[in-house]
Amino acid sequence: MTGPYETTALLHALFLIAIVVEAMTAALVAGRREMDWVGVCLLGCVTALGGGSMRDVLLGNHPLTWVAHPYYLLLTGGAALLTIAGARYMHKLRNVFLVLDAVGLVVFTVIGCNVALSLELPFVVVIASGMITGCVGGVLRDLLCNTIPLLFRAELYATVSILTGILYVGGLHLDLNHDVVMASAMAVGLSLRLLAIRFKWGMPKFIYSGNMD
Amino acid sequence: MTGPYETTALLHALFLIAIVVEAMTAALVAGRREMDWVGVCLLGCVTALGGGSMRDVLLGNHPLTWVAHPYYLLLTGGAALLTIAGARYMHKLRNVFLVLDAVGLVVFTVIGCNVALSLELPFVVVIASGMITGCVGGVLRDLLCNTIPLLFRAELYATVSILTGILYVGGLHLDLNHDVVMASAMAVGLSLRLLAIRFKWGMPKFIYSGNMD
Amino acid sequence: MTGPYETTALLHALFLIAIVVEAMTAALVAGRREMDWVGVCLLGCVTALGGGSMRDVLLGNHPLTWVAHPYYLLLTGGAALLTIAGARYMHKLRNVFLVLDAVGLVVFTVIGCNVALSLELPFVVVIASGMITGCVGGVLRDLLCNTIPLLFRAELYATVSILTGILYVGGLHLDLNHDVVMASAMAVGLSLRLLAIRFKWGMPKFIYSGNMD
Repeated sequence: MTGPYETTALLHALFLIAIVVEAMTAALVAGRREMDWVGVCLLGCVTALGGGSMRDVLLGNHPLTWVAHPYYLLLTGGAALLTIAGARYMHKLRNVFLVLDAVGLVVFTVIGCNVALSLELPFVVVIASGMITGCVGGVLRDLLCNTIPLLFRAELYATVSILTGILYVGGLHLDLNHDVVMASAMAVGLSLRLLAIRFKWGMPKFIYSGNMD
Repeated sequence: MTGPYETTALLHALFLIAIVVEAMTAALVAGRREMDWVGVCLLGCVTALGGGSMRDVLLGNHPLTWVAHPYYLLLTGGAALLTIAGARYMHKLRNVFLVLDAVGLVVFTVIGCNVALSLELPFVVVIASGMITGCVGGVLRDLLCNTIPLLFRAELYATVSILTGILYVGGLHLDLNHDVVMASAMAVGLSLRLLAIRFKWGMPKFIYSGNMD
Repeated sequence: MTGPYETTALLHALFLIAIVVEAMTAALVAGRREMDWVGVCLLGCVTALGGGSMRDVLLGNHPLTWVAHPYYLLLTGGAALLTIAGARYMHKLRNVFLVLDAVGLVVFTVIGCNVALSLELPFVVVIASGMITGCVGGVLRDLLCNTIPLLFRAELYATVSILTGILYVGGLHLDLNHDVVMASAMAVGLSLRLLAIRFKWGMPKFIYSGNMD
C-alpha cells in the first residue's frame, strides 16, 4: 500500500545517502579524538541511526529501524571504516559533505514526521518527532565525544528541522499534494540551512552570568 | 475513576508548576553556557520532562506524558523562552525558585511512585521509579551541559527523593489515608531538602585515589 | 522449559558475580570523582545494569531485568556501598578484579545474544545485542563521569564482545552442542581480553587532524 505517509522510493534513497554521510562525518569527529577503529565504527552507527532510534524508543514504535533492517548497521559501520582509509581526500569534498549533511537533516525530519503521522499523533508531537529524528544523532555523537552538543549552539540546526516539519505537516493539513508539499518543505529547509552556514546565521544566544543556584 | 493512585487535582497543579520551574532553572543553566534560544528551549523541555520520560521508557509505559499531552512541550519550552526575557529579575526570586524546585522534587517523586504502583510493580521498583522521575531531568541537563551530574555530588537530592518515596509507599502499605500519607511524605521530603540547602548538609563523600582500573 | 537459549544456572551465577564486580569497579571510579555515597550507589547500579537495560529498551523487551528482579538493584547498590568500606584493600585484589571484569564482559555478551536469539532477531542484531549488553554499562559510567567512554579508545573491549558473540552464535548456527559452544566462545573472548590487557594490545587508532566541519 502506498499512501501519503509512506516513505517514497526517492525519500528512501536519500535516507540511505544521509545515514552514510552522517556516519562518515562522525568518523572524522572520532578521528579528531583519536578513537580506535572500533570506536569509529560505533560512533558512526550511533550518529547515523541514533536519531531514529531515540524517536522510536520515545514513541514506543518497535521494532527500531536497524532491528528490522540490520544491514543499516553494516552500511553505516562500513562507511565509517572507509572514511579512515579516505580521510586524506575528504577535505576536497568538504562542500559536498556540507550539502549532503543538510540534505540529511531535512530528510530525517520528514521521515520522523511521517512515522509520527502514521501513529496518528498530535501536531506538536509530529514536529517533535521530526526534530528528534533529525537532530538527536548529532547530540549523541557530541555527548560521546564529551562536548556540549553543537545543536544547542549552532547555526539554525534545530530551527531548520522544526521549520521543515511545520511546513511539511502544515501543507499536508491543507490537503495539498503530498509530493509537492514534501519537496517544498525540504527545499525551504535545505536553503535556509545552507544560507545559515554560508552567512553564519544563528539564533540569538542567551548569555546569563547571574549567580542563581 | 478516582483512586488512591490517581493523580489528584492538587498534585497535577503542583506538577504543572514544577515542570515550569524546572524549565526556567534549566534555561538559566543554558544561559551560563551561552546556548542559543532554541537550545534554551530544548534544554528546558528535556530537563522538565526528561525524568518522567526516562521512567516511562524504562517501565515500557507508553504513551509518554508529553506524547499524550503535547502542550507540556509548549508550556516548558515557553517557560524557558520567557526566562530569557526575565533573567535579570530572576535573582530576586532566588529563594522562591529554590523552594519551588524542592517542591518539584517531591511532587515528581510521588507521581513517579504512583505510575509504578498503578503498574503493580514491586516496592523497590516503585521507589526507583519515584527517584528516576524526580532526579533524571537534572541528570540529563547536566550531561547536555557537559558537567558531572550534580545528583552524584549534591545536597541530599537523590536521598530526599528516595526517602519521600519510602515514606509515601510505606504509608500506603500500612493502609493509612492516602492524602494524609502523601502530604506527610512530601512535607518531610521538602523540609529535609530545604534544611539541606540551608545548612549545606550532604551525604559523606567517597574519596578514592587508588590506581585501580 | 530449558532450551539452548535459556540462561543456565552457571551463566546466572556468573551474571550475579559480574554485576557485583561492575558495581564495585564503578564505585572506585565514583570515588576518584569524589561523589557522595548515594552517587556511588547510583553509579554502581547504572554501570552494572545499564547495558542490559539499554538492550531491552532498544529491543522493546519488557519488563527490564531489574524491574522483574528488583533485588539486583539492592545487590549492585549494596556492592557499591561495601566498596567504600573496603576501598583500601581493593588494590590487593587488582588482578582478581581485572579477570572478573573480563569474565563479566563475555558473560554479559552471551546473555545479550541469548535475549536477541529468543526474540528470533537476525544475526547482526544478535551480535549487536550482545555487544550492547556487554559494553553500554561502562559507556554510561564514563558519560556520567564526564569522560570520553573508554570503550571508544581501550584495549579491544568492544572487539572482544563482538568476537565472542560471533563465535557463540556462529557455533549455534552450526548446530554444535550449546554448552561446548558457549564455553569455547567465552574462553576465547576471555583469553583475548586478558592478553590485550597484559600486552596492551589495541585496535589501531584513527587520528585525523583535518579541518572538516
